[in-house]
Amino acid sequence: MSEESIAEIHRVCVRFHSAIELIGGRWTGAILRAVFTGHHRFARIKAAVPGLSDTMLAQRLRVLEENELLERRVGAAGPAQIEYHLTEKGRELGPVLEAVVAWSHRWIPLPDDSARP
Amino acid sequence: MSEESIAEIHRVCVRFHSAIELIGGRWTGAILRAVFTGHHRFARIKAAVPGLSDTMLAQRLRVLEENELLERRVGAAGPAQIEYHLTEKGRELGPVLEAVVAWSHRWIPLPDDSARP
Repeated sequence: MSEESIAEIHRVCVRFHSAIELIGGRWTGAILRAVFTGHHRFARIKAAVPGLSDTMLAQRLRVLEENELLERRVGAAGPAQIEYHLTEKGRELGPVLEAVVAWSHRWIPLPDDSARP
Repeated sequence: MSEESIAEIHRVCVRFHSAIELIGGRWTGAILRAVFTGHHRFARIKAAVPGLSDTMLAQRLRVLEENELLERRVGAAGPAQIEYHLTEKGRELGPVLEAVVAWSHRWIPLPDDSARP
């Protein structure tokens, strides 16, 4: 059996690799999903993601801003009301998140203790 | 401005949350992509993912087997030749990975030192 040269192997694209780990980083995907489903304020996003702490949410929002997936905006109620909105780059993750939703509903079981309606 | 009850907030689905962090775990997405693109043996997968160590690959393959995304098979060359193949559950991640590829090619720049052809 002949062996192709390892040097000529088709490598996984570095852009794909960066992207999947950015989106799939701990809490990051869930925070993005919360914003996609209409939560834009810190307290609302936190409430939408069970187990997420203030510190971790603040840190992740910073990473998402640095990567230009989210942008901070002053809300209608004035400067005390900060909102987080998807950028165009962030919005275009919609098909990725929808594909994960579809796959997870087919393949990931609900936790045993999830007797919620 | 009225505030909806935090208790009634629409929560991010726990299945989505598990799925995105499984797929997006460090090295995991890149290893899956390598198998999708036709690499089935340990050395080939390792060569397809720059920077991946033997230890980390072995650990990640175990996680992917435990989560039933990959299965180990004895290759055509006999028991010394182990191959990793996608299960049906793993194969159905195809649309997720394709969506990430498309997004990353649009939005993630190549690293500066990437002068490869």
